[in-house]
Amino acid sequence: MLPAEIIRKKRDGGKLTKDEISFFVNGYIKGTIPDYQMSAFLMAVYFQGMDFEETTYLTEVMLHSGEIVDLSDVPGVKVDKHSTGGVGDKISLILAPIVASAGVPVPMISGRGLGHTGGTLDKLESIPGFKTNLSIIEYKKVISEIGLVMIGQTQEIAPADKKIYALRDVTATVESIPLISASIMSKKLAEGIDALVLDVKTGNGAFMREYDKALNLAQTLFAIGKNFGKKVIAFITDMNQPLGYAVGNWLEVVESVQCLRGFEVPDLMELTYTLAGAMIMLGEKAMSIEDGIKIAKKVVHSGEAYEKFLQLVERQGGEHMRNFYNLLKDRAVM
Amino acid sequence: MLPAEIIRKKRDGGKLTKDEISFFVNGYIKGTIPDYQMSAFLMAVYFQGMDFEETTYLTEVMLHSGEIVDLSDVPGVKVDKHSTGGVGDKISLILAPIVASAGVPVPMISGRGLGHTGGTLDKLESIPGFKTNLSIIEYKKVISEIGLVMIGQTQEIAPADKKIYALRDVTATVESIPLISASIMSKKLAEGIDALVLDVKTGNGAFMREYDKALNLAQTLFAIGKNFGKKVIAFITDMNQPLGYAVGNWLEVVESVQCLRGFEVPDLMELTYTLAGAMIMLGEKAMSIEDGIKIAKKVVHSGEAYEKFLQLVERQGGEHMRNFYNLLKDRAVM
Repeated sequence: MLPAEIIRKKRDGGKLTKDEISFFVNGYIKGTIPDYQMSAFLMAVYFQGMDFEETTYLTEVMLHSGEIVDLSDVPGVKVDKHSTGGVGDKISLILAPIVASAGVPVPMISGRGLGHTGGTLDKLESIPGFKTNLSIIEYKKVISEIGLVMIGQTQEIAPADKKIYALRDVTATVESIPLISASIMSKKLAEGIDALVLDVKTGNGAFMREYDKALNLAQTLFAIGKNFGKKVIAFITDMNQPLGYAVGNWLEVVESVQCLRGFEVPDLMELTYTLAGAMIMLGEKAMSIEDGIKIAKKVVHSGEAYEKFLQLVERQGGEHMRNFYNLLKDRAVM
Repeated sequence: MLPAEIIRKKRDGGKLTKDEISFFVNGYIKGTIPDYQMSAFLMAVYFQGMDFEETTYLTEVMLHSGEIVDLSDVPGVKVDKHSTGGVGDKISLILAPIVASAGVPVPMISGRGLGHTGGTLDKLESIPGFKTNLSIIEYKKVISEIGLVMIGQTQEIAPADKKIYALRDVTATVESIPLISASIMSKKLAEGIDALVLDVKTGNGAFMREYDKALNLAQTLFAIGKNFGKKVIAFITDMNQPLGYAVGNWLEVVESVQCLRGFEVPDLMELTYTLAGAMIMLGEKAMSIEDGIKIAKKVVHSGEAYEKFLQLVERQGGEHMRNFYNLLKDRAVM
């Protein structure tokens, strides 16, 4: 196979075989296919798209470029959430402790801010001492101990995605549904999850401004997840205005702590509870999303969710977290 | 300016300014813009095209990336021919000596075989000793002395084209009319010509199989030439079957010699005489193409054209060329 012939085939609207996608992506990882051929390929995919089968092959090749974490010795149905990114979206910081304290293990590998949207990792790292760069061994240890872990993409997880993503970022090839889908799902499928809740944003502040594109992305992500044997629920949610009141890493941590302590920020908590309800149901701790929402509200009001958050922060190296809330009050930011 | 923003603008169908094209191409030549951004850009141009103004800017930037040969001290109207390439197309080898012996200086910088098509350089180099890698100084000296010179693209001529062309070749971004046009014209405009005859091929054996595409390319090349103050005539010619009987570098040299000695290969010589007629007219040695054709036939039948060919071969280092025809007969290839 010749790389230029595969680029040409996609450029001309052809459907690539699994072998061709595997040859191209693995060649790129090994360095036998250079950056300049990958970027021409990515631009051809941007214009010609990929059908569902091709997108699944791409996801699979990228997934198998690295380690697939085995969490089978962690009891329970492991559930994660992925959001396509928005402004003021600190939901992961509130959601993950809620779901974990409802007894559903949450293994979460998050990303950094992208374009105008914030990143969960950046928010977590604004907590003094919080470490997001755990190894896979530490990652497994933390989730086994406290039913929750939140880290960044490691070298072991989907390295093909990491390398391709860096190239897409500087070659104007980010906004492609098959490329976005394969990138998200290759990472999520490597985490060791059994089920996934998707929060696909639409509106002015989202990458997919148009509803139709958001729907297309949600359907693609959903179908890939199903194809890999995962339980998936997808929501398309509004990102025409920021979620909650706070925007900015540390300010969003503060707002998350407030919410975990029972403060009701209406839009933010409505979405958080809905996603939590879906995750708790997928994690087999509730019969329906509605039941899951009730459980989620219960663990917030009982203080269990906030306690889980404190546990997470301490376990991943954050300092002075027992006095966190008092500290915030002292600093008069609340 | 950010390279990725220029790629994005073209990707989204925007019209680039002269400054943006200049920034991108010159950045690429200087090495501040890497291969992978250029190849993504080229693929975006492949899909979104460039309008006439953008194509002219691109040509101009590529032209000025190198030396523009000044042949103003060579008397006469300097005329070259460019063909978009075909099978069995040895026309340059016959045409250039005919036109030069009609008193029109022919400064010709040719290319190598591309895809399935042959290259004039490869054919010339099958003549033992023939040197095509003359410096610009030698190039000027040869045309001053014998009114004819045939070389390959030097480092000085449109280096931007040379670097971009090498990248297009391995990224499936060759078949783009604005990119082809800027590549051809940046080289031709650097040669020192006053006028140009274009032979744009169409049909099964051509790069532009469809007549409409060939017409579009011919119109673009024509308009760029005019814009740079050159006299231009463009022909769209048939490439549904090879020109002449011979295909293969040395075999085509032999057929060219036969034709220069008056042998009539009908399709090959009809086209050669037509192009010669146009070149002789543009070179102001005939009042019309028809008059030019008459002159062309005269210099073939008088032996002057063949004599000019022998002169060229000797001047550019070919050996034993006075006995060339006898040598061919001895080898029983005729």
